[in-house]
Amino acid sequence: MGATALIGLDWGTSALRAYRIDRDGAIREQRRADLGILHIVDGAFEEALVATIGDWLAEAPDVPMLAAGMITSRQGWLETPYLPCPAGIDALAAALVPGRLRSGRTILFVRGLSIRGADGVPDVMRGEETQIAGALAGGDAPRLLLLPGTHAKWVRCEGERITAFATMMTGELYGLLRRHSILGRLMEGDAEDAAAFARGVGHGASEDPAAGGLLHRLFGTRSLGLFGEIPPPGLASYLSGLLIGSELREGGLMYGAGEPVGLIGETALVERYRTALGLLGRACRILAPDLAACGLFALARRAGILGGG
Amino acid sequence: MGATALIGLDWGTSALRAYRIDRDGAIREQRRADLGILHIVDGAFEEALVATIGDWLAEAPDVPMLAAGMITSRQGWLETPYLPCPAGIDALAAALVPGRLRSGRTILFVRGLSIRGADGVPDVMRGEETQIAGALAGGDAPRLLLLPGTHAKWVRCEGERITAFATMMTGELYGLLRRHSILGRLMEGDAEDAAAFARGVGHGASEDPAAGGLLHRLFGTRSLGLFGEIPPPGLASYLSGLLIGSELREGGLMYGAGEPVGLIGETALVERYRTALGLLGRACRILAPDLAACGLFALARRAGILGGG
Repeated sequence: MGATALIGLDWGTSALRAYRIDRDGAIREQRRADLGILHIVDGAFEEALVATIGDWLAEAPDVPMLAAGMITSRQGWLETPYLPCPAGIDALAAALVPGRLRSGRTILFVRGLSIRGADGVPDVMRGEETQIAGALAGGDAPRLLLLPGTHAKWVRCEGERITAFATMMTGELYGLLRRHSILGRLMEGDAEDAAAFARGVGHGASEDPAAGGLLHRLFGTRSLGLFGEIPPPGLASYLSGLLIGSELREGGLMYGAGEPVGLIGETALVERYRTALGLLGRACRILAPDLAACGLFALARRAGILGGG
Repeated sequence: MGATALIGLDWGTSALRAYRIDRDGAIREQRRADLGILHIVDGAFEEALVATIGDWLAEAPDVPMLAAGMITSRQGWLETPYLPCPAGIDALAAALVPGRLRSGRTILFVRGLSIRGADGVPDVMRGEETQIAGALAGGDAPRLLLLPGTHAKWVRCEGERITAFATMMTGELYGLLRRHSILGRLMEGDAEDAAAFARGVGHGASEDPAAGGLLHRLFGTRSLGLFGEIPPPGLASYLSGLLIGSELREGGLMYGAGEPVGLIGETALVERYRTALGLLGRACRILAPDLAACGLFALARRAGILGGG
């Protein structure tokens, strides 16, 4: 374990991902446990950590430990205040919040980011800032990043800083409509139907005001099903395409649609977005996985706390 | 019962409403039972009818009976095909579909309407066409009608005809987000908070593209709650305002925002829309209740089937 310079924790709602990273930023070992904050009872965060990487902690007692994600939310280990945007690697590294294990060991928490939108409404992220730091530390990321998911993030970057961002509820809305709405009742299965997905993307992305907005377009999923124009096994793909197409239209209005988008996220979902962007003639690039580990390393290095030197 | 000229049935998803109507269109008696099609088992529609108005049926054996609503859907008593728009009182009255009770008595069903939108996607209504017929038969309804609800309908009329319409999933989306989403988790109660509602209407109706679209604006409900800018008891009102404001923005883009809107529906909901329209400086008029009964009467009269003469 002599080469370990950082223990990085990407600790989210459903999972804890731990990385043992060396001085060059290489991941020596990684582990994943279903010990996200939703699964932790009575604040037993330290116990969850020991259960997952107790051997690392014992073998590398002096190596710094850095954690990011929902672990810093109100339901997490230690609630940290949001850092206002614009903010980048420097500001995040300078604002780490220390906590302490009962063993006396320190754990540093990365703060999330906040921003106030054009309409004065605030927006927040917690965890994504670390993935983005990982992308920006690489030096060649596109200036517009898109992190699809339950609460997708659109992120405008300049140099090593995040200057603006917006959350889109695309993923959560898909889940709600699929499981609980009248639209879901006509659906059969979740197999991918490329033609239905493409049709949904087109309808969602259409700029024609006469075609209505999202509240209206969603209902088309039902009427296309009722009229047999999309068969029941394709309706889930249609809805997914419709929502992603709508997100790309909304995001294009906010952030412009003329530049390449950098995609960050889980492989299957990112591929869906790549397909949708391609259908709309927009360029994109899928960024490397493990950006959370890269970001934790970049922040630790910038904070000057890397161990094992 | 000599004066009964029509038995009208407004038979929806959750309730059966029955009207005993005289030759002048006056409602002599009305009843309501929790016997909507969702509550009917094994196709026992006739039994439900007899349980609700068996005495009317016995006392007026020759009076015509007309039914509208989800009773004509696939899950209803008799599925009727949609009538394509444009269509009005004449076309609906000429297209009644007869069914037969086991007693041999005839029941006539009103067909729903369909339309194909600017983007080629179909849309449908079933039940609302009868309320609208009731409004149009009165002769002085606004040319733009709005029927708020689970699946709100925006309806463009010319004379006695419906020339275009669009469904908005506003009500269903509110229910889903209130009950099942992360937005609902911060909410406390459903008491009306006029200030929070007004703020939601403003954010939902904003035409500023930099403020994003609905997928983004929805998330603001959470961040305003997280930042304490709307207290938990006001968040449900904020979300309701946000969705209604968004619907008014979308509907304005499709149907224009410069003319008075005629509101049809349940009193409390219609009042919410009146408030929202007022906040946006738009004129509206709340149309009479019982329009379903008026519409059933208008269709029966136009079809020349009124009895008891």
